[in-house]
Amino acid sequence: MTLRVLVWNENKHESRGDAHVNELYPEGIHGAIAEGLRGLLGDEAVVNTATLQEPEHGLTQEVLDHTDVLLWWGHIGHDEVADEVVDRVYRRVHEGMGLIVLHSGHYSKIFTRLMGTTCSLKWRGDGERELVWTVDPRHPIAAGVPSPIVIPEQEMYGEFFDIPEPDELVFISNFAGGEVFRSGVTYRRGNGRVFYFSPGDQEFPVYHQPEIRRVLANGVRWAAPVADNLPLTADYHATGWFEQ
Amino acid sequence: MTLRVLVWNENKHESRGDAHVNELYPEGIHGAIAEGLRGLLGDEAVVNTATLQEPEHGLTQEVLDHTDVLLWWGHIGHDEVADEVVDRVYRRVHEGMGLIVLHSGHYSKIFTRLMGTTCSLKWRGDGERELVWTVDPRHPIAAGVPSPIVIPEQEMYGEFFDIPEPDELVFISNFAGGEVFRSGVTYRRGNGRVFYFSPGDQEFPVYHQPEIRRVLANGVRWAAPVADNLPLTADYHATGWFEQ
Amino acid sequence: MTLRVLVWNENKHESRGDAHVNELYPEGIHGAIAEGLRGLLGDEAVVNTATLQEPEHGLTQEVLDHTDVLLWWGHIGHDEVADEVVDRVYRRVHEGMGLIVLHSGHYSKIFTRLMGTTCSLKWRGDGERELVWTVDPRHPIAAGVPSPIVIPEQEMYGEFFDIPEPDELVFISNFAGGEVFRSGVTYRRGNGRVFYFSPGDQEFPVYHQPEIRRVLANGVRWAAPVADNLPLTADYHATGWFEQ
Amino acid sequence: MTLRVLVWNENKHESRGDAHVNELYPEGIHGAIAEGLRGLLGDEAVVNTATLQEPEHGLTQEVLDHTDVLLWWGHIGHDEVADEVVDRVYRRVHEGMGLIVLHSGHYSKIFTRLMGTTCSLKWRGDGERELVWTVDPRHPIAAGVPSPIVIPEQEMYGEFFDIPEPDELVFISNFAGGEVFRSGVTYRRGNGRVFYFSPGDQEFPVYHQPEIRRVLANGVRWAAPVADNLPLTADYHATGWFEQ
Repeated sequence: MTLRVLVWNENKHESRGDAHVNELYPEGIHGAIAEGLRGLLGDEAVVNTATLQEPEHGLTQEVLDHTDVLLWWGHIGHDEVADEVVDRVYRRVHEGMGLIVLHSGHYSKIFTRLMGTTCSLKWRGDGERELVWTVDPRHPIAAGVPSPIVIPEQEMYGEFFDIPEPDELVFISNFAGGEVFRSGVTYRRGNGRVFYFSPGDQEFPVYHQPEIRRVLANGVRWAAPVADNLPLTADYHATGWFEQ
Repeated sequence: MTLRVLVWNENKHESRGDAHVNELYPEGIHGAIAEGLRGLLGDEAVVNTATLQEPEHGLTQEVLDHTDVLLWWGHIGHDEVADEVVDRVYRRVHEGMGLIVLHSGHYSKIFTRLMGTTCSLKWRGDGERELVWTVDPRHPIAAGVPSPIVIPEQEMYGEFFDIPEPDELVFISNFAGGEVFRSGVTYRRGNGRVFYFSPGDQEFPVYHQPEIRRVLANGVRWAAPVADNLPLTADYHATGWFEQ
Repeated sequence: MTLRVLVWNENKHESRGDAHVNELYPEGIHGAIAEGLRGLLGDEAVVNTATLQEPEHGLTQEVLDHTDVLLWWGHIGHDEVADEVVDRVYRRVHEGMGLIVLHSGHYSKIFTRLMGTTCSLKWRGDGERELVWTVDPRHPIAAGVPSPIVIPEQEMYGEFFDIPEPDELVFISNFAGGEVFRSGVTYRRGNGRVFYFSPGDQEFPVYHQPEIRRVLANGVRWAAPVADNLPLTADYHATGWFEQ
Repeated sequence: MTLRVLVWNENKHESRGDAHVNELYPEGIHGAIAEGLRGLLGDEAVVNTATLQEPEHGLTQEVLDHTDVLLWWGHIGHDEVADEVVDRVYRRVHEGMGLIVLHSGHYSKIFTRLMGTTCSLKWRGDGERELVWTVDPRHPIAAGVPSPIVIPEQEMYGEFFDIPEPDELVFISNFAGGEVFRSGVTYRRGNGRVFYFSPGDQEFPVYHQPEIRRVLANGVRWAAPVADNLPLTADYHATGWFEQ
């Protein structure tokens, strides 16, 4: 069955014309991510994009109902995302839609709401080297990924990262300035799977790196819904309901 | 240092005069819980109560700022809890206040918000036997607690319980009708500790049982804030900030 | 790629002629398990069997080197398994071979060695009803498995089960006598995956139940090795070894 | 109740006269660790030491029976530790004795046996800077510990570290050469608690650093046995044994 993938981007840096961002990502960050996924997933997936600027941010109920895995990139526009749309995405994750939250999306409404924590962290934008180490080498998201991934220039994200204890800790990053960061973590929320992956910034060409694209393609496969999702309702069950 | 404990109850069954509830809990569910905590914690804690009916539900910023551990009992009044008060409690948990959520509080605004899941479950109110088994016998919440705790009559709560993977699974319950339930689970959220414990219902005298009171007293001790909570903000940190 | 599956059984009850066991399992417990796997996995897997009575218990280095997933059933013959063979299986798990330990295999040399705990539990052989509940409905081992699985008659295994905190808790069982048991748990050990599943006993026809066979087939798929296992050695790495 | 703490050291580098080690640790590594614990724990604990060279390595059954928390430092003498003594320590951990394994003790017989994995890792002895970051700031082992701890010169230990998924991940280290390491991890094994902490090497004065001593003192408190340990035996339990 073909996976229906949607790459969402706030598209603020791009649409307001940040020169460096436009140069690095002429098709937008969403465009670069989508290109990477199409290249690696091929016929396995149909990859579309949507942005904040579209009506309902391109995330109508109908679009979401036909999305298996949603990728989320946001930074300076978190507050502009309508609460109603966030509610919709939140419910769809519970129903089984996979969600991959990228980089500064740690502070998005949807991620903090799914986590129940502040998702705060330390940061520094000096363009220093990030090394992404695999600490769960059997995890499908790490398949075919070198350890470490060397990212020559990146924004630093450092601990303490205020997230719930991850279900699975897949990657830990080392920054040249000395910080560490739990850069690849997974969670289950309702029927849905959530993967947060921190590498990737508007100022650096991270989403053009083949290894990063490999992680995202693996993430899409991993987060795909399973066939038989459970209804998540509080229901009365009479004694012996499971016996007929 | 004396622990400042606050037992919050929606107090709906009691205040509207449900006869059976009034008989079981003449001082309210909050009264019974507070009595149990006072008996077991003695000088270790000052135990107060608050209810939905009070101004700001008895949960003003000042009250919360002087609360170390909050216990929460709600059932039919979840919707009546003001969002502003929920925001306040949410922030205080992140700052380090402990939170113990009881029984039907699984569906409260504060618990679902801290969890990021639906917290749905199966239920049945036939007054059947619940056995609460310890599966983490070294956990401080299980100290001095018999395994199993025998609760002669209880409401059934059954799996699938839609919660995040617990940080620690302390208790699992067996119901006479055949269901199981993860009845004692812990989480960290920001600087705060959260303990959910399902036994306890308005229709049964569960909060008068010494073993249940022991679990709650242990829970209060476990959830107490630590001395040096972290500020949870996203701050710029220049290279080498940690070296002086 | 075809999975190479080996079902190992101590084959003690069968070979010494326990009448009831021979009636329930005319081809041995290993025969019944293998039959179930063949039926569900079809061309995906080649399923062989081996027993304690064979030279080197049928677990020569060569056999293990050509095994992707090993299933292990033992009960009264744990002590008869040669330490050298256990060492061999232990190393193969670290290299990436999947291992599925069944029922009374909780006390086998290989399982206790991989766990580092006593793996002790409570038990009772009264043939009471076991209900196996799914608590991780998205887990691939739970795919297509009803919750609960109803096992009309089973040996009781009860908590406290002295195992390490599971990586994933997939199933919890309820016994008619009141006990609960973490009946489906997973672990990673080195490159290998380990799944312990408790339902199944020589006195009851559990391994003929379609739902149990479904769990085992799912388990085999889940435990299969990944392509690129890591060498697990302590090696010197010069500064900058990851840069060329 | 006074904690009975025993610091065990293979004492090989010291006893064979490695000049640099003798200069850094004139009383042996065990002496430096014991001194640190005595200074911080005061009347809370009685701290003794034992070494490989003593009869039964100083770990007779009687000594172990009167030990609440054992610290273990080993490097080049792992093979010289008698299996019988390892068995003894292993059983005492299951009975409830706390165990703190230090640095190159990752390859000791007792640690690999409790873990069930190879415990392999990458290493390099260039004396580079290690920064130890707290990722579980509420954990009692992290109380009063700065994040990061700055260790000016240390041996590098790098991922992939082949350990079971930790129950709790308390510290992650960053090395100047670019590696990361899960440097503080906890496990429960039977009734006992196990804490592995990697900083500390015979070539560097790490065990003289106040912050490292604080971690070890916190670790001792955390690993102390609880009052009512469970017997870990597989026992028959008749139906209704829990009702009298």
